[in-house]
Amino acid sequence: MPGRHAGAGLPASGIHRRPRSTVVTAPGACPVNAPETHLSDLPAQPLDERLSLTRAPFAASRKAYIAGSRPDLRVPVREIALSNGETVVVHDTSGPYTDPSVSLDVRQGLPDVRSRWVADRADTEAYAGRLRQAEDDGGRDDNERIARLRTEAAALQRQPRRAVSGANVSQMHYARRGIITPEMEFVALRENGRREWMRDYIGDAEREQRLRGDSLGASIPEVITPEFVRQEVARGRAVIPANINHPELEPTIIGRNFRVKVNANIGNSAVTSSIEEEVEKLVWSIRWGADTVMDLSTGRNIHTTRDWILRNSPVPIGTVPIYQALEKVGGVAEDLTWALFRDTLIEQAEQGVDYFTIHAGLRLPFIPMTTRRRTGIVSRGGSILAKWCITHHRENFLYTHFEEICDIMKAYDVTFSLGDGLRPGSAADANDEAQFAELRTLGELTQIAWRHDVQTLIEGPGHVPMHLIAANMAEQLKHCHEAPFYTLGPLTIDIAPGYDHIASAIGAAMIGWMGTSMLCYVTPKEHLGLPDREDVKQGLMAYKIAAHAADVAKGHPGARARDDAMSKARFEFRWNDQFALGLDPDTARDYHDETLPKDAAKSAHFCSMCGPKFCSMKITQDVREYAERGMAQKSAEFKAAGGAFYVPIQPQP
Amino acid sequence: MPGRHAGAGLPASGIHRRPRSTVVTAPGACPVNAPETHLSDLPAQPLDERLSLTRAPFAASRKAYIAGSRPDLRVPVREIALSNGETVVVHDTSGPYTDPSVSLDVRQGLPDVRSRWVADRADTEAYAGRLRQAEDDGGRDDNERIARLRTEAAALQRQPRRAVSGANVSQMHYARRGIITPEMEFVALRENGRREWMRDYIGDAEREQRLRGDSLGASIPEVITPEFVRQEVARGRAVIPANINHPELEPTIIGRNFRVKVNANIGNSAVTSSIEEEVEKLVWSIRWGADTVMDLSTGRNIHTTRDWILRNSPVPIGTVPIYQALEKVGGVAEDLTWALFRDTLIEQAEQGVDYFTIHAGLRLPFIPMTTRRRTGIVSRGGSILAKWCITHHRENFLYTHFEEICDIMKAYDVTFSLGDGLRPGSAADANDEAQFAELRTLGELTQIAWRHDVQTLIEGPGHVPMHLIAANMAEQLKHCHEAPFYTLGPLTIDIAPGYDHIASAIGAAMIGWMGTSMLCYVTPKEHLGLPDREDVKQGLMAYKIAAHAADVAKGHPGARARDDAMSKARFEFRWNDQFALGLDPDTARDYHDETLPKDAAKSAHFCSMCGPKFCSMKITQDVREYAERGMAQKSAEFKAAGGAFYVPIQPQP
Repeated sequence: MPGRHAGAGLPASGIHRRPRSTVVTAPGACPVNAPETHLSDLPAQPLDERLSLTRAPFAASRKAYIAGSRPDLRVPVREIALSNGETVVVHDTSGPYTDPSVSLDVRQGLPDVRSRWVADRADTEAYAGRLRQAEDDGGRDDNERIARLRTEAAALQRQPRRAVSGANVSQMHYARRGIITPEMEFVALRENGRREWMRDYIGDAEREQRLRGDSLGASIPEVITPEFVRQEVARGRAVIPANINHPELEPTIIGRNFRVKVNANIGNSAVTSSIEEEVEKLVWSIRWGADTVMDLSTGRNIHTTRDWILRNSPVPIGTVPIYQALEKVGGVAEDLTWALFRDTLIEQAEQGVDYFTIHAGLRLPFIPMTTRRRTGIVSRGGSILAKWCITHHRENFLYTHFEEICDIMKAYDVTFSLGDGLRPGSAADANDEAQFAELRTLGELTQIAWRHDVQTLIEGPGHVPMHLIAANMAEQLKHCHEAPFYTLGPLTIDIAPGYDHIASAIGAAMIGWMGTSMLCYVTPKEHLGLPDREDVKQGLMAYKIAAHAADVAKGHPGARARDDAMSKARFEFRWNDQFALGLDPDTARDYHDETLPKDAAKSAHFCSMCGPKFCSMKITQDVREYAERGMAQKSAEFKAAGGAFYVPIQPQP
Repeated sequence: MPGRHAGAGLPASGIHRRPRSTVVTAPGACPVNAPETHLSDLPAQPLDERLSLTRAPFAASRKAYIAGSRPDLRVPVREIALSNGETVVVHDTSGPYTDPSVSLDVRQGLPDVRSRWVADRADTEAYAGRLRQAEDDGGRDDNERIARLRTEAAALQRQPRRAVSGANVSQMHYARRGIITPEMEFVALRENGRREWMRDYIGDAEREQRLRGDSLGASIPEVITPEFVRQEVARGRAVIPANINHPELEPTIIGRNFRVKVNANIGNSAVTSSIEEEVEKLVWSIRWGADTVMDLSTGRNIHTTRDWILRNSPVPIGTVPIYQALEKVGGVAEDLTWALFRDTLIEQAEQGVDYFTIHAGLRLPFIPMTTRRRTGIVSRGGSILAKWCITHHRENFLYTHFEEICDIMKAYDVTFSLGDGLRPGSAADANDEAQFAELRTLGELTQIAWRHDVQTLIEGPGHVPMHLIAANMAEQLKHCHEAPFYTLGPLTIDIAPGYDHIASAIGAAMIGWMGTSMLCYVTPKEHLGLPDREDVKQGLMAYKIAAHAADVAKGHPGARARDDAMSKARFEFRWNDQFALGLDPDTARDYHDETLPKDAAKSAHFCSMCGPKFCSMKITQDVREYAERGMAQKSAEFKAAGGAFYVPIQPQP
């Protein structure tokens, strides 16, 4: 399996990292330029034989589909069959990979989902596309393996489409014209999911009253209709990132009044990783619940990597185009030009990227505001643009050319993710002048984008101690006209490298509750190195927890039902059901089995935490039975004795 | 190394668990009764040769001491030497284990810290102690190894002390009489730590204003004085758990106006673990930052296990005496009696247990309130008492005999931890009638305890979605007269078995910020099995993060300085300093070294996340240099041209 540099020697900490496949760098070679030699890789081997893609359905689960109003519109869900005959139906981001009835070949890409929907709108045209250039891939790798990947990727290419002259093909444009698109219907069905099974869990009046959520000002309807989706998209309070050139996409919606979404970051760097590993990470990410994935590659073969990713992704893909632009000018920020950047936007839009991070709010006069910061500018894109601005002493070209960017976005329906290049990278810099100056500019830019009906997300921090999080949400709501907020965490402390997924899950859960629409995950490798597959999974677990905690706190309809089903399974000692209902069934089962591996233990009324005598749930069941018998008996005695024997004890006030 | 049941086969998930030593159970034997055969254990081997106790100081760290007002009073701290000549001084819970100048033998126990302080008060007497009985250890294990452990433990025994007739030896009693004890001075020095090094990090006026914490109603002084400690203890708003029979204790204080504390749980169960493993867990827990440790053993050899734990613990030890009482009656809850329980309290108080969880608030009339619950009664002790009450149809004997318990507590200075036996074990049960009925009773009991000057903690939930957490804090403050709150999490969702340390760190951070004084950790094994060493560490990392996030949000003086030092080290690419300053230096280093293991990389101005061209921190440094040069140059040009060339661009409003 493709891998990368092995750590030197055994980790001193005894931490339990799985062994990695070894990649050998030529001794003494600078890690930046050394070619990779994969011990297990024969140059003639096709990609899919080198990949390790997990296709197994989850425990006790099968893929099912909710039918829409047209035969080519069906929404995937996952059905979990419990041992007591119940079915629990949950949201499913894993795509066709977990549908055994679909045969897949990564060299062909995923099945088409929506090119008919696009074609039916009759406002786009196929065209030759921009001429491919060597610099698109950095021009540096020419070994046999990479050449083969490029050739195979060429087989993946679809002919690009764009808006016909004068047309605007964004979902917002349709929404504002009163049109409900198939994409809107799809996401409405997806957000509701199937809910009949929830009746057992959310029908109790006392419980519903006591546990009633607090959405802190959101407006979440009991049932999401396509019309509601249209309204939210029309007013900019939600986005459906769906480039017309990404027909494999199973659309999703991002907005405060919908389920909180999670993004996973993948992508290589100059130091490590490979195309194969990135495709594996994509499939792995969506298996574990990523609603969108960003390809943040900054190393070699950025274009080819993205081909493989896009054609095989059922979720929206985001990028930061300035990275590839920087690679094209050999890493010299000062050499960036608007023309080169514009060309890169078109290149990526033709491939089908669904959203672009654009740091157009990082303006020249804001840069001096960062000089007293503890950690300066921590955004890659932000620092690149800051360098350009300072070197040329000119305003950020993304800001000055913003409307031209809008023209490109609306021709393909690429969604803006307006970057927070000046986000704080340490608690010390939280909520400072530079950060909020940029945020206010993002608000201005949102208005411009919306004049072009271009869908827009607003990116957010970063590193923010808990007591300063509410102010972030308030400022964003105030200045950005309810455009969806998309934060990175935030991290609530700085002293936990190796555990920043936890330090930031705390902030993410809180800001998700307060109204943030999408949470960009953080992995255990944050601040230390590029995440691998296991890190991707750990980051996703932490962020699915944060997102779900937010949904439950907001009172999102039905959110609590899965927790309730889990608790019922726990109380009834249905161990296999507990595992199947969890975010990570494999790990839950493995942890249980470390101390009680036998099958008989799967119906045991205890686990190794307390053992059979001390299991509180078991004892509770005894108590209940006794109480029911006892109370019936006491009641009979009372009546027989004319009311003298049993005197209820009043609870103390 | 002693271990336990190995998991069957390779974990399907590919999760990275370290290999475990194998313990073989006789085939077909019920896991409850099977004797353990340790492959690596020769019966004649002494305990300390079987233990694996980590004594190495942390990276770049050494133990130092803050001198108090008397020669036998010195407070441990950890000094971290940074590569730029700075020193950072942090709180240290790891005890003499990390002081290489102290030679230790677990069979002798730790050095004496405070028996002179106790003796100087001249209000206690040594006495023979209660007669040891076979049932104290469950009477079931008689193999050679256990017999040897018991004999070695006998060598650990100290002669117990108790208050002379009529005396009250609690810290609260002294505090209310205006006496500042050495314990109070110790914790005051410990809470402040050494702060001179912080000047570089918390002296900036703009930053202090912008980042000023919000303690949500706490009253945290800039410097903790022994007099302030006395006042807090006198009014019951803080406790110093410090049994007179625990002379090895390095005291700590638990209260809203002090650093948020973290408790780790250890202890065997009937299914798994051993005395040796529990001692290892103790030392491992305090290494990773546990401020107190609870021994929750429910299996064999409870008394002997506790001997080993107490004599070797520099942190307060808590227990739940009803567990051992239940073992003594062979697991039959109905057979529990007040006399047996009272005897168990004395047994444990003589050993030196610093705090007891006592579920005295779980009253008979509250039990029917749990019948409609999703997960009933999840507290072990709570369910045991509920069974007793229902079976006998009598009021909880802990409630009816509460003042007699107080008489025992005050003779040894054992602190109450009034148990939340009716805490919610699922989101569905959060904040229900049963939970708050018990909480109100805990408030009543607090008043009674305080009439006896017995120090008191209040235990709290549990499973509570984020939006319901504030109500928990409010109710506790309202009903429990500001006695310190000590919560288990709370967990904010139920669907993440395997990751409940994260699901609960979110709730713990929030409730810590709101005023909870101590957070009881949750490990990845929660709901699945007994935690092992690695789980203990993972739980502690999550909870040190939560506690620190709370301290920073509250604006605890100096809390933010360590984050700042970390951020400075990060910005200056002092990698070794980053590792040394983290909560887990070993893991941070190992993660970094997975992709960049060479020593040269430790001063590299990048890591493998972005590589050398894309490292934002590196680029920021370039930007700063350029900006400083550029601005100086522009300024000169401006002046030379009489003001015509340089026109500042105003930031947009």
